Amino acid sequence: MTKRDPEALLQAAKEQNRVALARLLTVVENDEVAARGIAPLLWTGHRAFSIGITGAPGAGKSTLTDRMIATSLERFVPAGGSAAIREVGVLCVDPTSPFSGGAILGDRVRMQDHALDARVFIRSLATRGHLGGLSLAVPDAIGVLGAAGFDLVLVETVGVGQVELEVAATADATIVVLTPGWGDAMQAAKAGLLEIADLFVINKADRPGASEARRDLSQMLDIGSARPDGWRPLIVETVATSGDGTVELFDAIDALRAHLASGAGVARRREQAATLLRRIYAARMARAVEGLAATATFERLVEDVATGSIDPYAAVDLLQLP
Amino acid sequence: MTKRDPEALLQAAKEQNRVALARLLTVVENDEVAARGIAPLLWTGHRAFSIGITGAPGAGKSTLTDRMIATSLERFVPAGGSAAIREVGVLCVDPTSPFSGGAILGDRVRMQDHALDARVFIRSLATRGHLGGLSLAVPDAIGVLGAAGFDLVLVETVGVGQVELEVAATADATIVVLTPGWGDAMQAAKAGLLEIADLFVINKADRPGASEARRDLSQMLDIGSARPDGWRPLIVETVATSGDGTVELFDAIDALRAHLASGAGVARRREQAATLLRRIYAARMARAVEGLAATATFERLVEDVATGSIDPYAAVDLLQLP
Repeated sequence: MTKRDPEALLQAAKEQNRVALARLLTVVENDEVAARGIAPLLWTGHRAFSIGITGAPGAGKSTLTDRMIATSLERFVPAGGSAAIREVGVLCVDPTSPFSGGAILGDRVRMQDHALDARVFIRSLATRGHLGGLSLAVPDAIGVLGAAGFDLVLVETVGVGQVELEVAATADATIVVLTPGWGDAMQAAKAGLLEIADLFVINKADRPGASEARRDLSQMLDIGSARPDGWRPLIVETVATSGDGTVELFDAIDALRAHLASGAGVARRREQAATLLRRIYAARMARAVEGLAATATFERLVEDVATGSIDPYAAVDLLQLP
Repeated sequence: MTKRDPEALLQAAKEQNRVALARLLTVVENDEVAARGIAPLLWTGHRAFSIGITGAPGAGKSTLTDRMIATSLERFVPAGGSAAIREVGVLCVDPTSPFSGGAILGDRVRMQDHALDARVFIRSLATRGHLGGLSLAVPDAIGVLGAAGFDLVLVETVGVGQVELEVAATADATIVVLTPGWGDAMQAAKAGLLEIADLFVINKADRPGASEARRDLSQMLDIGSARPDGWRPLIVETVATSGDGTVELFDAIDALRAHLASGAGVARRREQAATLLRRIYAARMARAVEGLAATATFERLVEDVATGSIDPYAAVDLLQLP
């Protein structure tokens, strides 16, 4: 059993070896979960509760996450537990960067107080070799943290692109962070945020326009359909820089968890599982297509289509997966 | 042979029966090309030269297209021909609309002069049943028009979303329409337009900022790589409302066609064929995944993953395509 053996790394991670945990997350980024046979360890044992935090750049997601780390250590009680959690994991997701592991943490320096706190584990995740991209690497990483004993994982995205919405939607709960200001609610609707949010946080709520933003959001939620499991997203106002509203935010999180525990969580986990299976399958198919495109048959058929001697549909009929 | 037989429709379309042509395009939208056995007719015979026209809403694409219709009838000489074309086809592509066929033409009323001109055929295309979406339906539709005898097809998109870029890139040549104004060139770069453009049109060039826009664009083209086939995109200034610059635009199109005819066109057609084959293959795989998701095995595996009794990678290993 070498130092790089994933099972040994996981055992060490359970014993709070942070270097082992970080290495294991690198394994996940590099798509070696299934290949190395550790997928069952990540997916069939202890699972962390995960909260995706998304919203436009500048909405104050990092500062809010910072507050949530501190508050969660005081009051997040895991399912079946009787006391607050001992540790919280934070995954910072940047789909635009090929780097990770802390090198490009950028404004993560704001989290530096926690970085010295042994109860907090912060890690950036970026697009590396994982065949399914971040929408599979992040659930795997949440699995790693859960298997290592974490009860809560916060997943913060840098922006609101398609990949980031997909990532946020893989968490057990999703918080969308907005700021006061005309049209923010409308922008959220345009970006597809209304569909994925369990909780809306209007951050910087000490600025003008917070109550209007709440009203606009509420009206849009009236018009739009409720989430499939009957949950109506809650709206919380916060001032992350001062900590105002953090208690109310965790009250809202508790209400959501109670809703999920009452049965809605089962349907949601099924839906997430179905999405995962489709993504894994699609990723494998995409890899097969890439393999196919490297064959001599493909090259010949491309030539035949380009010169008009065969139509492309007939050409694909002639392709056989290697 | 019924009226709806695609081969009969194509024969009628060749004889300038516009109703038959419109019906054939509906067939294409509904993804019945391969199923009905007409793909060879669309892809292995006479091909039209196609020009994609894309750019942000409000850049004046419709008015420019309008000018291009008129000018192309006067001076577009098909490959191997000796006189200007007799007919021009226009496909208006709106990925956001499920409707088509003229019902939602919207500002296409601006093209109404041409709509009464028997030499011009204008048709909207929207997302219907085609399994590959518009990025396959549009090439098929260009094939229909080519098979019906058209030598030139203009493909205008309503905006610059991902689908629209893909659609524009399926044409033989791509025109990106910008307007003067600070940052437009930068926006174009962000939207991925620099990579797909063969020609840039700075429309509304009578407004302030046209020469700055040209300079910014030119600098970006200096920094960015040339197109893979060595073509450096040309920049043309137009005022579509008055027709200024339309002659220069067609001079630029002629220069591009000469470049493509000199050998670069072969590589480009190969590249397009390879992209088409991948898309068709991926679309068929996606359909297979949908079929899979409807099976009892899939449902059972979803349940097993949701309850944590199997990991999702192992679950996908157990899936078999129907």
